[in-house]
Amino acid sequence: MSKIRGMMKPYPSLSLGILGGGQLARLLALKAHDLGVRTRVLSASASDPAAQVARLWSQGALDDPKVLEEFLRSCDVVTFESEFLDAKLLRRLQLKTGTAIYPRPSHMAAIQDRLTQKNLLLRHRVPTAAYLPVSNFRQARAAWDAFGPAGGLVLKKRRFGYDGNGTFPVRTREELEALRLEVESNKTGFIAERLVRFRREAACMVVRGRTGKAVAMPLVETRQESARCLWVKGPLRIPAGAAFVKRLLRFADAIGYVGALGVELFDSPDGLIVNELAPRVHNSGHYTLEALAEDQFTAHVRAVLGLAVSKPRALADGYAMLNLLGEGVDPRWKAPVDVSLHWYGKTESRPGRKMGHLTALAQTSNAALKRLLSARLSFQV
Amino acid sequence: MSKIRGMMKPYPSLSLGILGGGQLARLLALKAHDLGVRTRVLSASASDPAAQVARLWSQGALDDPKVLEEFLRSCDVVTFESEFLDAKLLRRLQLKTGTAIYPRPSHMAAIQDRLTQKNLLLRHRVPTAAYLPVSNFRQARAAWDAFGPAGGLVLKKRRFGYDGNGTFPVRTREELEALRLEVESNKTGFIAERLVRFRREAACMVVRGRTGKAVAMPLVETRQESARCLWVKGPLRIPAGAAFVKRLLRFADAIGYVGALGVELFDSPDGLIVNELAPRVHNSGHYTLEALAEDQFTAHVRAVLGLAVSKPRALADGYAMLNLLGEGVDPRWKAPVDVSLHWYGKTESRPGRKMGHLTALAQTSNAALKRLLSARLSFQV
Repeated sequence: MSKIRGMMKPYPSLSLGILGGGQLARLLALKAHDLGVRTRVLSASASDPAAQVARLWSQGALDDPKVLEEFLRSCDVVTFESEFLDAKLLRRLQLKTGTAIYPRPSHMAAIQDRLTQKNLLLRHRVPTAAYLPVSNFRQARAAWDAFGPAGGLVLKKRRFGYDGNGTFPVRTREELEALRLEVESNKTGFIAERLVRFRREAACMVVRGRTGKAVAMPLVETRQESARCLWVKGPLRIPAGAAFVKRLLRFADAIGYVGALGVELFDSPDGLIVNELAPRVHNSGHYTLEALAEDQFTAHVRAVLGLAVSKPRALADGYAMLNLLGEGVDPRWKAPVDVSLHWYGKTESRPGRKMGHLTALAQTSNAALKRLLSARLSFQV
Repeated sequence: MSKIRGMMKPYPSLSLGILGGGQLARLLALKAHDLGVRTRVLSASASDPAAQVARLWSQGALDDPKVLEEFLRSCDVVTFESEFLDAKLLRRLQLKTGTAIYPRPSHMAAIQDRLTQKNLLLRHRVPTAAYLPVSNFRQARAAWDAFGPAGGLVLKKRRFGYDGNGTFPVRTREELEALRLEVESNKTGFIAERLVRFRREAACMVVRGRTGKAVAMPLVETRQESARCLWVKGPLRIPAGAAFVKRLLRFADAIGYVGALGVELFDSPDGLIVNELAPRVHNSGHYTLEALAEDQFTAHVRAVLGLAVSKPRALADGYAMLNLLGEGVDPRWKAPVDVSLHWYGKTESRPGRKMGHLTALAQTSNAALKRLLSARLSFQV
């Protein structure tokens, strides 16, 4: 990757391409605009959230080699909002076009498959729940024998899982047997993880630049409901926190990661352990838009362009983020004051769909969250 | 204006049109995107700073009635980045199309002409430098007789002055005589103002919503060099500050103003006085992007859409903004950390042209400014 086109251009002349049109792509585009980077978006529909905020928008499918190649040729650096792309294709096109893709397609490949993701964590001694590969029902039963007595397991599809999709908690042998068809009909296989009884869920954004410098944003507590992120509050101060974050930074260094890396955590009786990784900006990091001097989107753009990333600095003692989930979300004229609104411009609201989010700053994380829960009332009809 | 189209839509379905393609329009569009408002931009060229950040961009001249009418018909509410438009035409098209324009064209008309602007201030007893209308050289001499003995005067063109253009300080009778041709050849006339010997320049953003509620952002000190804004720092705490700001709020209420109103001030031996008004977001308010919980652009968008505007709340004890002025501005790969960059994406750099700006937060306004002055070194080649 030593002869990337445009490496020596002043960065406002650089063209950054974003694959995908959802809210993560939209927020990336808005922050890339602020840096003056020429920002291009590739997505399926003109009504996509990110398509609305860039004149340099191209319509196309993210799995179409011709579309991708043409898009890459129009950019100096390309990034993405979802890890579920064809990583092999991206790697090939990166070599063919000379356009850098960050995070690296090899990391996308390793992380998009839960088995190789767990293997990567294990290899680098990052604490995570014990796991076994499950590619047939015989292996599922073996996993039950290993994890059942200790309290159960979670079956997770190796690929394309998100927001609880493809994730099956198993607490009894009967529950396992009921999943037989599910396991046998899925071609890409599963992993079985020991069921972790956690005190709370947490998250941490790590951002590592092409310069080689990695920073970690604050540890925050996250709350899921119906397997969707409901809110985030921070900072989360727990005894083992600082040491764990250092371990994450070492991990990012060791694998030569570039860009934002979302790390979901369990605060368990065995201490902090990684639940899963996302090689991209992450919903759990949206609070940074207002809470930090440099937000995750700006940091990611800077990281992938080869600019220095700022050391994270909080602008308040407490902060929180609340997702505005679809159906019944209708802000009319009542959009609340004293909280910050990010609305994604989605044309259709569906139950549980992420339509936007709110953030607040306060003296404590609980005070910030309380303000958001009260502000949410303005968004319900 | 009681039957504005779209008044009852939930605001993310509202379409906000922005007239103009410069950096103020760009920053307005970025913040309108964050609120999820469907944002349209009308400007002359696809390479305009604001054109780059909106897919719903239309090319056209802002003084072409057909272009304007079509644009207004595609929007629910329209705002602008420059007061130097044809206010009479806008008022006519507002009535014809039913699309609301804020700030009101009548306020644009009153403020775009320095004489009617001063008359407006005088009528509402807002302190401002004594002035006289000058439409011929005889009147210029009369103004000298009035203001010369007290130290001089400033001749200002009634229309289209900006960044020192159309402004002539006159300290001797000889200097006045040298301006004879200038005065006699200008059709739109001048005003003559008493020359104010100020301790410092200052500014204050007032934002008043269609809801009727007005808020004032902090008083800040501003520094001009070669008649261009170089930096802003704040908050500026001076004894008469709070009372003066209240007076500005009363003024905005009294005239039924809607939107952001930039107020440039002199801190003079006679106390604070208004230098001039701008019926729009203003360079002196760019610091709010990072320093306040709700920045001037978000507040303006909320105000013109009829949403409540938040009470300004600072996120740091000190803050500053530094303009990055053209020629030699070349950030290469060195874009500094620990300051926030807003680069406008202009395709051409010219001496003195505003290419972008930096902001910083710190414990004091001087510490913030110092950080910016040091960061600026990264932008010079």
